Amino acid sequence: MNPLFLITNDDSLQAKGIQTLISVARRIGDVIVMAPERNSSGLAHSFTSSRPIRVNPVSQEEGCQVFVCDGTPVDCIKVSSEHFCPRRPDLVLSGINHGSNSSINVLYSGTMGAVLEASVSGLDAIGFSLLDFRPDADFSLAEPFVESIVRKVLEKGLPEQVALNVNFPVPSQGAYKGVRICRQSRARWLESYERRIDPHGRPYYWLAGRFECDDCQTDTDQWALENGFVSVVPTTTDFTDYQNLERIKQLYA
Amino acid sequence: MNPLFLITNDDSLQAKGIQTLISVARRIGDVIVMAPERNSSGLAHSFTSSRPIRVNPVSQEEGCQVFVCDGTPVDCIKVSSEHFCPRRPDLVLSGINHGSNSSINVLYSGTMGAVLEASVSGLDAIGFSLLDFRPDADFSLAEPFVESIVRKVLEKGLPEQVALNVNFPVPSQGAYKGVRICRQSRARWLESYERRIDPHGRPYYWLAGRFECDDCQTDTDQWALENGFVSVVPTTTDFTDYQNLERIKQLYA
Repeated sequence: MNPLFLITNDDSLQAKGIQTLISVARRIGDVIVMAPERNSSGLAHSFTSSRPIRVNPVSQEEGCQVFVCDGTPVDCIKVSSEHFCPRRPDLVLSGINHGSNSSINVLYSGTMGAVLEASVSGLDAIGFSLLDFRPDADFSLAEPFVESIVRKVLEKGLPEQVALNVNFPVPSQGAYKGVRICRQSRARWLESYERRIDPHGRPYYWLAGRFECDDCQTDTDQWALENGFVSVVPTTTDFTDYQNLERIKQLYA
Repeated sequence: MNPLFLITNDDSLQAKGIQTLISVARRIGDVIVMAPERNSSGLAHSFTSSRPIRVNPVSQEEGCQVFVCDGTPVDCIKVSSEHFCPRRPDLVLSGINHGSNSSINVLYSGTMGAVLEASVSGLDAIGFSLLDFRPDADFSLAEPFVESIVRKVLEKGLPEQVALNVNFPVPSQGAYKGVRICRQSRARWLESYERRIDPHGRPYYWLAGRFECDDCQTDTDQWALENGFVSVVPTTTDFTDYQNLERIKQLYA
Protein backbone atom coordinates (compact mmCIF):
# COMPACT_ATOMS: atom_id res chain seq x y z
CA MET A 1 0.00 0.00 0.00
CA ASN A 2 1.24 3.51 -0.80
CA PRO A 3 2.36 5.60 2.15
CA LEU A 4 -0.30 8.15 3.13
CA PHE A 5 0.70 11.77 3.75
CA LEU A 6 -1.37 14.34 5.60
CA ILE A 7 -0.26 17.81 4.50
CA THR A 8 -1.00 21.23 5.95
CA ASN A 9 0.65 24.63 6.41
CA ASP A 10 -0.14 28.05 7.81
CA ASP A 11 0.12 30.12 4.62
CA SER A 12 -3.08 28.63 3.10
CA LEU A 13 -3.59 26.50 0.00
CA GLN A 14 -2.66 29.30 -2.41
CA ALA A 15 0.95 29.40 -1.16
CA LYS A 16 3.70 28.20 -3.45
CA GLY A 17 5.35 26.37 -0.54
CA ILE A 18 2.51 23.90 0.08
CA GLN A 19 2.20 23.25 -3.64
CA THR A 20 5.88 22.24 -3.71
CA LEU A 21 5.33 19.94 -0.73
CA ILE A 22 2.27 18.35 -2.37
CA SER A 23 4.15 17.65 -5.58
CA VAL A 24 7.02 15.99 -3.69
CA ALA A 25 4.60 13.87 -1.64
CA ARG A 26 2.62 12.78 -4.70
CA ARG A 27 5.78 11.31 -6.21
CA ILE A 28 6.04 9.05 -3.15
CA GLY A 29 2.52 8.20 -2.03
CA ASP A 30 -1.11 9.18 -1.49
CA VAL A 31 -1.97 12.59 -0.17
CA ILE A 32 -4.65 14.23 1.94
CA VAL A 33 -4.29 18.02 2.06
CA MET A 34 -6.10 19.98 4.77
CA ALA A 35 -4.99 23.59 4.50
CA PRO A 36 -6.29 26.57 6.46
CA GLU A 37 -8.66 28.75 4.43
CA ARG A 38 -6.82 31.91 5.37
CA ASN A 39 -3.24 32.82 6.13
CA SER A 40 -2.68 31.58 9.68
CA SER A 41 0.88 32.69 10.32
CA GLY A 42 1.64 33.33 13.97
CA LEU A 43 -1.26 31.21 15.23
CA ALA A 44 1.18 28.86 16.98
CA HIS A 45 -0.63 26.03 18.78
CA SER A 46 -4.03 27.72 18.98
CA PHE A 47 -7.12 25.64 18.30
CA THR A 48 -10.86 26.12 18.05
CA SER A 49 -13.35 24.72 20.53
CA SER A 50 -15.82 27.52 21.31
CA ARG A 51 -17.24 27.47 17.79
CA PRO A 52 -17.56 24.73 15.18
CA ILE A 53 -15.23 24.51 12.19
CA ARG A 54 -16.07 23.97 8.52
CA VAL A 55 -14.26 21.84 5.98
CA ASN A 56 -14.74 22.33 2.25
CA PRO A 57 -13.54 19.97 -0.49
CA VAL A 58 -11.41 21.64 -3.16
CA SER A 59 -10.46 18.78 -5.47
CA GLN A 60 -10.41 15.02 -5.60
CA GLU A 61 -8.06 13.11 -7.84
CA GLU A 62 -6.75 9.56 -7.70
CA GLY A 63 -4.32 9.58 -4.76
CA CYS A 64 -4.80 13.24 -3.82
CA GLN A 65 -7.72 14.77 -1.98
CA VAL A 66 -7.60 18.46 -1.14
CA PHE A 67 -9.67 20.27 1.50
CA VAL A 68 -9.65 23.68 3.16
CA CYS A 69 -10.68 24.28 6.76
CA ASP A 70 -11.72 27.55 8.40
CA GLY A 71 -9.79 26.69 11.57
CA THR A 72 -6.15 26.91 12.63
CA PRO A 73 -3.31 24.65 11.44
CA VAL A 74 -3.74 22.63 14.67
CA ASP A 75 -7.46 22.25 13.88
CA CYS A 76 -6.48 20.98 10.41
CA ILE A 77 -4.55 18.11 11.97
CA LYS A 78 -7.15 17.33 14.61
CA VAL A 79 -10.14 17.19 12.25
CA SER A 80 -8.34 15.35 9.44
CA SER A 81 -7.21 12.40 11.51
CA GLU A 82 -10.75 11.59 12.54
CA HIS A 83 -12.92 12.52 9.57
CA PHE A 84 -10.87 12.88 6.40
CA CYS A 85 -8.06 10.32 6.42
CA PRO A 86 -9.06 6.93 5.01
CA ARG A 87 -6.42 5.38 7.26
CA ARG A 88 -3.80 6.48 9.75
CA PRO A 89 -1.33 8.78 7.95
CA ASP A 90 2.23 7.45 7.72
CA LEU A 91 3.67 10.93 7.87
CA VAL A 92 2.41 14.46 8.47
CA LEU A 93 4.09 17.25 6.50
CA SER A 94 3.65 20.96 7.15
CA GLY A 95 4.89 23.85 5.02
CA ILE A 96 6.94 24.62 3.13
CA ASN A 97 6.59 27.81 5.13
CA HIS A 98 7.40 31.14 3.52
CA GLY A 99 9.72 32.46 6.23
CA SER A 100 11.95 31.08 8.97
CA ASN A 101 10.79 28.78 11.73
CA SER A 102 14.26 28.28 13.10
CA SER A 103 15.36 29.27 16.58
CA ILE A 104 12.68 30.89 18.74
CA ASN A 105 10.32 31.27 15.75
CA VAL A 106 9.21 27.70 16.40
CA LEU A 107 7.21 29.06 19.34
CA TYR A 108 5.02 31.35 17.23
CA SER A 109 4.71 29.23 14.13
CA GLY A 110 1.41 27.83 12.87
CA THR A 111 3.38 25.51 10.58
CA MET A 112 5.16 24.01 13.57
CA GLY A 113 1.96 24.12 15.68
CA ALA A 114 0.50 21.56 13.26
CA VAL A 115 3.67 19.47 13.45
CA LEU A 116 3.74 19.41 17.26
CA GLU A 117 0.03 18.55 17.32
CA ALA A 118 0.63 15.57 15.04
CA SER A 119 3.52 14.53 17.23
CA VAL A 120 1.42 14.65 20.41
CA SER A 121 -1.10 12.43 18.62
CA GLY A 122 1.59 9.84 18.00
CA LEU A 123 2.12 10.61 14.31
CA ASP A 124 5.52 11.13 12.70
CA ALA A 125 5.70 14.73 11.48
CA ILE A 126 8.05 17.16 9.76
CA GLY A 127 7.81 20.93 9.36
CA PHE A 128 9.62 22.58 6.44
CA SER A 129 10.39 26.30 6.16
CA LEU A 130 12.40 28.48 3.81
CA LEU A 131 14.11 31.67 4.98
CA ASP A 132 12.26 33.75 2.39
CA PHE A 133 8.80 35.07 3.19
CA ARG A 134 8.01 36.40 -0.28
CA PRO A 135 5.05 34.81 -2.10
CA ASP A 136 7.25 34.01 -5.09
CA ALA A 137 10.09 32.50 -3.01
CA ASP A 138 12.23 29.96 -4.88
CA PHE A 139 11.80 26.40 -3.52
CA SER A 140 13.80 24.65 -6.26
CA LEU A 141 16.94 24.16 -4.13
CA ALA A 142 14.86 22.93 -1.21
CA GLU A 143 12.77 20.43 -3.15
CA PRO A 144 15.32 17.57 -3.52
CA PHE A 145 16.22 17.90 0.19
CA VAL A 146 12.52 17.71 1.13
CA GLU A 147 12.20 14.53 -0.89
CA SER A 148 15.28 12.87 0.57
CA ILE A 149 14.34 13.77 4.17
CA VAL A 150 10.77 12.51 3.66
CA ARG A 151 12.03 9.23 2.20
CA LYS A 152 14.49 8.76 5.07
CA VAL A 153 11.82 9.36 7.72
CA LEU A 154 9.43 6.95 5.99
CA GLU A 155 12.17 4.35 5.93
CA LYS A 156 13.63 4.79 9.43
CA GLY A 157 10.77 6.36 11.39
CA LEU A 158 11.16 8.81 14.25
CA PRO A 159 11.49 8.12 17.97
CA GLU A 160 8.14 8.44 19.74
CA GLN A 161 6.94 12.03 20.21
CA VAL A 162 9.89 13.51 18.32
CA ALA A 163 9.18 15.71 15.31
CA LEU A 164 11.57 17.45 12.93
CA ASN A 165 11.85 21.19 12.33
CA VAL A 166 13.61 21.62 8.98
CA ASN A 167 14.71 25.05 7.72
CA PHE A 168 16.31 25.99 4.40
CA PRO A 169 18.72 28.91 3.92
CA VAL A 170 17.95 31.81 1.59
CA PRO A 171 18.38 30.30 -1.89
CA SER A 172 20.33 33.30 -3.18
CA GLN A 173 23.34 32.10 -1.19
CA GLY A 174 23.85 29.28 -3.72
CA ALA A 175 23.58 25.48 -3.53
CA TYR A 176 23.00 24.09 -0.04
CA LYS A 177 26.07 22.48 1.51
CA GLY A 178 24.23 19.60 3.17
CA VAL A 179 22.14 18.82 6.24
CA ARG A 180 23.02 19.60 9.86
CA ILE A 181 21.15 18.03 12.76
CA CYS A 182 21.31 20.66 15.46
CA ARG A 183 19.77 22.34 18.47
CA GLN A 184 17.45 25.33 18.55
CA SER A 185 19.40 28.55 18.81
CA ARG A 186 18.56 30.86 21.68
CA ALA A 187 17.21 34.17 20.46
CA ARG A 188 14.43 36.70 20.90
CA TRP A 189 12.43 39.23 19.01
CA LEU A 190 13.14 42.76 20.14
CA GLU A 191 9.63 44.10 19.96
CA SER A 192 8.77 47.56 19.06
CA TYR A 193 5.17 48.67 18.69
CA GLU A 194 4.54 51.74 16.63
CA ARG A 195 1.99 53.91 18.35
CA ARG A 196 -0.20 55.63 15.77
CA ILE A 197 -3.37 57.70 15.86
CA ASP A 198 -6.42 56.58 13.85
CA PRO A 199 -8.68 58.97 11.83
CA HIS A 200 -10.90 59.27 14.93
CA GLY A 201 -8.10 60.43 17.20
CA ARG A 202 -7.68 57.13 19.04
CA PRO A 203 -4.32 55.39 19.47
CA TYR A 204 -3.48 51.97 18.08
CA TYR A 205 -0.33 49.86 18.31
CA TRP A 206 1.24 47.96 15.45
CA LEU A 207 3.89 45.32 16.04
CA ALA A 208 7.27 45.65 14.41
CA GLY A 209 10.44 44.09 15.74
CA ARG A 210 13.74 42.65 14.84
CA PHE A 211 15.24 39.24 15.43
CA GLU A 212 18.21 39.17 17.78
CA CYS A 213 20.34 36.08 18.14
CA ASP A 214 23.67 35.93 19.89
CA ASP A 215 23.74 32.15 20.22
CA CYS A 216 25.39 31.07 16.99
CA GLN A 217 27.61 28.21 18.13
CA THR A 218 28.30 25.57 15.49
CA ASP A 219 25.75 23.16 16.98
CA THR A 220 22.82 25.56 16.46
CA ASP A 221 20.27 25.96 13.67
CA GLN A 222 21.22 29.63 13.22
CA TRP A 223 24.81 28.69 12.55
CA ALA A 224 23.78 26.00 10.05
CA LEU A 225 21.48 28.37 8.16
CA GLU A 226 23.96 31.23 8.08
CA ASN A 227 26.58 28.88 6.72
CA GLY A 228 24.55 27.41 3.89
CA PHE A 229 23.36 24.19 5.53
CA VAL A 230 19.82 22.84 5.84
CA SER A 231 19.03 22.75 9.58
CA VAL A 232 17.14 19.87 11.19
CA VAL A 233 16.13 20.25 14.84
CA PRO A 234 14.47 17.30 16.62
CA THR A 235 11.66 18.88 18.65
CA THR A 236 9.72 17.74 21.69
CA THR A 237 6.38 18.72 23.20
CA ASP A 238 7.72 18.19 26.70
CA PHE A 239 8.39 21.73 27.94
CA THR A 240 10.02 20.57 31.18
CA ASP A 241 13.38 22.26 31.62
CA TYR A 242 15.34 19.14 32.61
CA GLN A 243 18.61 21.06 32.64
CA ASN A 244 17.27 23.21 35.48
CA LEU A 245 14.97 20.75 37.24
CA GLU A 246 17.40 19.86 40.01
CA ARG A 247 18.47 23.48 40.45
CA ILE A 248 14.87 24.56 40.88
CA LYS A 249 14.33 21.75 43.40
CA GLN A 250 17.30 22.98 45.42
CA LEU A 251 16.31 26.65 45.17
CA TYR A 252 12.72 26.08 46.16
CA ALA A 253 12.92 23.08 48.47
CA MET B 1 11.18 50.58 45.53
CA ASN B 2 8.19 48.21 45.48
CA PRO B 3 8.47 45.19 43.21
CA LEU B 4 6.51 45.69 39.99
CA PHE B 5 4.22 42.93 38.73
CA LEU B 6 2.86 42.64 35.23
CA ILE B 7 -0.29 40.50 35.31
CA THR B 8 -2.30 38.88 32.55
CA ASN B 9 -4.39 35.76 31.87
CA ASP B 10 -6.43 34.22 29.09
CA ASP B 11 -9.86 34.24 30.72
CA SER B 12 -10.20 38.06 30.52
CA LEU B 13 -10.44 40.66 33.27
CA GLN B 14 -13.85 39.52 34.47
CA ALA B 15 -12.49 36.16 35.63
CA LYS B 16 -12.34 35.42 39.33
CA GLY B 17 -8.87 33.90 38.91
CA ILE B 18 -7.13 37.07 37.76
CA GLN B 19 -8.84 39.06 40.50
CA THR B 20 -7.35 36.67 43.08
CA LEU B 21 -3.93 37.07 41.50
CA ILE B 22 -4.23 40.87 41.50
CA SER B 23 -5.17 40.95 45.16
CA VAL B 24 -2.19 38.77 46.13
CA ALA B 25 0.20 40.92 44.06
CA ARG B 26 -1.13 44.17 45.53
CA ARG B 27 -0.23 42.96 49.01
CA ILE B 28 3.40 42.68 47.84
CA GLY B 29 4.04 45.41 45.30
CA ASP B 30 2.86 47.60 42.43
CA VAL B 31 0.75 46.14 39.69
CA ILE B 32 0.17 46.65 35.96
CA VAL B 33 -2.68 44.52 34.64
CA MET B 34 -3.02 43.97 30.89
CA ALA B 35 -5.79 41.46 30.34
CA PRO B 36 -7.26 40.30 27.05
CA GLU B 37 -10.62 41.91 26.29
CA ARG B 38 -12.22 38.58 25.47
CA ASN B 39 -11.79 35.01 26.65
CA SER B 40 -8.62 33.81 24.92
CA SER B 41 -8.42 30.23 26.10
CA GLY B 42 -6.63 27.92 23.69
CA LEU B 43 -4.81 30.75 21.91
CA ALA B 44 -1.45 29.29 22.97
CA HIS B 45 1.46 31.37 21.72
CA SER B 46 -0.42 33.17 18.95
CA PHE B 47 0.22 36.87 18.44
CA THR B 48 -1.04 39.68 16.24
CA SER B 49 1.00 41.37 13.56
CA SER B 50 -1.24 41.67 10.49
CA ARG B 51 -3.53 44.16 12.20
CA PRO B 52 -2.94 46.74 14.94
CA ILE B 53 -4.05 46.14 18.52
CA ARG B 54 -5.93 48.46 20.86
CA VAL B 55 -5.37 49.04 24.55
CA ASN B 56 -8.03 50.61 26.76
CA PRO B 57 -7.51 51.84 30.32
CA VAL B 58 -9.98 50.39 32.85
CA SER B 59 -8.88 51.89 36.16
CA GLN B 60 -5.98 53.72 37.73
CA GLU B 61 -5.31 53.62 41.42
CA GLU B 62 -2.18 54.24 43.47
CA GLY B 63 0.01 51.21 42.74
CA CYS B 64 -2.43 49.47 40.41
CA GLN B 65 -3.15 50.32 36.77
CA VAL B 66 -5.54 48.12 34.83
CA PHE B 67 -5.84 47.89 31.03
CA VAL B 68 -7.55 45.61 28.56
CA CYS B 69 -6.16 44.75 25.15
CA ASP B 70 -7.97 43.36 22.10
CA GLY B 71 -5.05 41.05 21.30
CA THR B 72 -3.90 37.67 22.56
CA PRO B 73 -2.24 36.95 25.94
CA VAL B 74 1.14 37.03 24.15
CA ASP B 75 0.25 40.46 22.71
CA CYS B 76 -0.59 41.62 26.25
CA ILE B 77 2.98 40.86 27.35
CA LYS B 78 4.61 42.29 24.24
CA VAL B 79 2.75 45.62 24.25
CA SER B 80 2.93 46.15 28.02
CA SER B 81 6.66 45.89 28.33
CA GLU B 82 7.22 48.67 25.83
CA HIS B 83 4.33 51.06 26.34
CA PHE B 84 2.59 50.50 29.67
CA CYS B 85 5.18 49.51 32.27
CA PRO B 86 6.84 52.46 34.00
CA ARG B 87 9.90 50.27 34.52
CA ARG B 88 11.01 46.71 33.84
CA PRO B 89 8.63 44.35 35.69
CA ASP B 90 10.23 42.28 38.43
CA LEU B 91 7.86 39.41 37.83
CA VAL B 92 5.18 38.48 35.30
CA LEU B 93 2.17 36.57 36.63
CA SER B 94 -0.47 34.88 34.48
CA GLY B 95 -3.75 33.35 35.61
CA ILE B 96 -5.06 32.08 37.87
CA ASN B 97 -6.48 30.05 35.03
CA HIS B 98 -9.89 28.43 35.37
CA GLY B 99 -8.88 24.92 34.27
CA SER B 100 -5.76 22.77 34.13
CA ASN B 101 -2.57 23.75 32.35
CA SER B 102 -0.69 20.72 33.58
CA SER B 103 0.77 18.05 31.34
CA ILE B 104 0.23 18.55 27.61
CA ASN B 105 -2.28 21.36 28.24
CA VAL B 106 0.71 23.72 28.50
CA LEU B 107 0.93 23.52 24.70
CA TYR B 108 -2.53 24.95 24.07
CA SER B 109 -2.72 27.41 26.93
CA GLY B 110 -3.00 31.16 26.44
CA THR B 111 -2.12 31.59 30.12
CA MET B 112 1.16 29.76 29.59
CA GLY B 113 1.68 31.43 26.18
CA ALA B 114 1.99 34.73 28.05
CA VAL B 115 4.38 33.17 30.55
CA LEU B 116 6.66 31.68 27.88
CA GLU B 117 6.64 35.00 26.01
CA ALA B 118 7.78 36.82 29.14
CA SER B 119 10.45 34.20 29.67
CA VAL B 120 11.79 34.59 26.10
CA SER B 121 12.00 38.32 26.78
CA GLY B 122 14.20 37.68 29.79
CA LEU B 123 11.55 38.31 32.44
CA ASP B 124 10.87 35.98 35.36
CA ALA B 125 7.38 34.59 34.96
CA ILE B 126 4.91 32.23 36.63
CA GLY B 127 1.65 30.77 35.34
CA PHE B 128 -0.99 29.67 37.85
CA SER B 129 -3.92 27.39 37.07
CA LEU B 130 -6.63 25.66 39.08
CA LEU B 131 -8.12 22.33 38.02
CA ASP B 132 -11.63 23.76 37.99
CA PHE B 133 -12.89 25.56 34.90
CA ARG B 134 -16.11 26.87 36.42
CA PRO B 135 -16.50 30.67 36.59
CA ASP B 136 -17.19 30.47 40.36
CA ALA B 137 -14.22 28.16 41.08
CA ASP B 138 -12.89 28.42 44.65
CA PHE B 139 -9.37 29.93 44.78
CA SER B 140 -9.19 30.24 48.57
CA LEU B 141 -6.95 27.19 49.07
CA ALA B 142 -4.68 28.29 46.24
CA GLU B 143 -4.25 31.89 47.38
CA PRO B 144 -1.72 31.38 50.21
CA PHE B 145 0.37 29.11 47.96
CA VAL B 146 0.34 31.75 45.22
CA GLU B 147 1.60 34.31 47.71
CA SER B 148 4.37 32.12 49.08
CA ILE B 149 5.57 31.05 45.59
CA VAL B 150 5.58 34.66 44.38
CA ARG B 151 7.55 35.80 47.42
CA LYS B 152 10.08 32.98 46.96
CA VAL B 153 10.64 33.79 43.28
CA LEU B 154 11.04 37.49 44.08
CA GLU B 155 13.61 36.60 46.71
CA LYS B 156 15.59 33.90 44.87
CA GLY B 157 14.94 34.63 41.19
CA LEU B 158 14.72 32.06 38.43
CA PRO B 159 17.50 30.71 36.20
CA GLU B 160 17.62 32.52 32.87
CA GLN B 161 14.81 31.56 30.45
CA VAL B 162 13.12 29.25 32.96
CA ALA B 163 9.50 29.91 33.87
CA LEU B 164 7.22 28.10 36.30
CA ASN B 165 3.98 26.32 35.45
CA VAL B 166 2.03 26.00 38.71
CA ASN B 167 -1.19 23.98 38.94
CA PHE B 168 -3.54 23.54 41.89
CA PRO B 169 -5.66 20.41 42.52
CA VAL B 170 -9.45 20.54 42.62
CA PRO B 171 -10.22 22.24 45.95
CA SER B 172 -12.95 19.76 46.85
CA GLN B 173 -10.23 17.19 47.64
CA GLY B 174 -9.39 19.13 50.84
CA ALA B 175 -6.34 21.09 52.00
CA TYR B 176 -3.32 20.88 49.70
CA LYS B 177 -0.54 18.63 50.99
CA GLY B 178 2.34 20.83 49.84
CA VAL B 179 4.32 21.67 46.71
CA ARG B 180 5.99 19.19 44.33
CA ILE B 181 8.55 20.32 41.76
CA CYS B 182 8.07 17.90 38.92
CA ARG B 183 8.22 17.17 35.21
CA GLN B 184 5.44 17.53 32.66
CA SER B 185 3.43 14.35 32.36
CA ARG B 186 3.11 12.79 28.92
CA ALA B 187 -0.47 12.73 27.74
CA ARG B 188 -2.75 13.54 24.85
CA TRP B 189 -6.26 14.64 24.06
CA LEU B 190 -8.24 11.95 22.33
CA GLU B 191 -10.09 14.16 19.91
CA SER B 192 -13.52 13.52 18.72
CA TYR B 193 -15.31 15.97 16.47
CA GLU B 194 -19.06 15.77 16.40
CA ARG B 195 -20.26 16.08 12.85
CA ARG B 196 -23.56 17.97 12.76
CA ILE B 197 -25.75 19.44 10.06
CA ASP B 198 -26.65 23.14 10.16
CA PRO B 199 -30.14 24.57 9.37
CA HIS B 200 -29.03 24.99 5.75
CA GLY B 201 -28.07 21.35 5.31
CA ARG B 202 -24.29 21.90 5.49
CA PRO B 203 -22.02 19.90 7.79
CA TYR B 204 -19.98 21.42 10.60
CA TYR B 205 -17.55 19.87 13.08
CA TRP B 206 -17.39 20.63 16.78
CA LEU B 207 -14.45 19.59 18.89
CA ALA B 208 -15.01 17.40 21.91
CA GLY B 209 -12.40 15.12 23.41
CA ARG B 210 -11.11 13.56 26.53
CA PHE B 211 -7.78 13.80 28.27
CA GLU B 212 -5.79 10.58 28.35
CA CYS B 213 -2.70 10.23 30.51
CA ASP B 214 -0.91 7.00 31.25
CA ASP B 215 2.28 8.66 32.49
CA CYS B 216 1.57 9.11 36.19
CA GLN B 217 4.92 8.29 37.76
CA THR B 218 5.60 10.01 41.07
CA ASP B 219 7.86 12.63 39.44
CA THR B 220 5.07 13.99 37.18
CA ASP B 221 2.65 16.86 37.54
CA GLN B 222 -0.32 14.54 37.01
CA TRP B 223 0.73 12.41 39.95
CA ALA B 224 1.20 15.47 42.16
CA LEU B 225 -2.22 16.88 41.29
CA GLU B 226 -4.04 13.58 41.68
CA ASN B 227 -2.45 13.14 45.08
CA GLY B 228 -3.36 16.54 46.50
CA PHE B 229 -0.08 18.41 45.86
CA VAL B 230 0.47 21.72 44.13
CA SER B 231 2.55 20.95 41.00
CA VAL B 232 5.39 23.20 39.86
CA VAL B 233 7.04 22.42 36.50
CA PRO B 234 10.06 24.47 35.39
CA THR B 235 9.44 25.16 31.69
CA THR B 236 11.73 26.07 28.83
CA THR B 237 11.18 27.65 25.42
CA ASP B 238 13.90 25.51 23.90
CA PHE B 239 11.97 22.79 22.04
CA THR B 240 15.09 20.81 21.11
CA ASP B 241 14.68 17.19 22.11
CA TYR B 242 18.09 16.77 23.74
CA GLN B 243 17.23 13.25 24.88
CA ASN B 244 16.93 12.18 21.23
CA LEU B 245 19.44 14.50 19.57
CA GLU B 246 22.25 11.94 19.34
CA ARG B 247 19.86 9.20 18.28
CA ILE B 248 18.54 11.33 15.43
CA LYS B 249 22.11 12.15 14.41
CA GLN B 250 22.89 8.43 14.21
CA LEU B 251 19.65 7.57 12.42
CA TYR B 252 19.98 10.31 9.84
CA ALA B 253 23.71 10.70 9.44
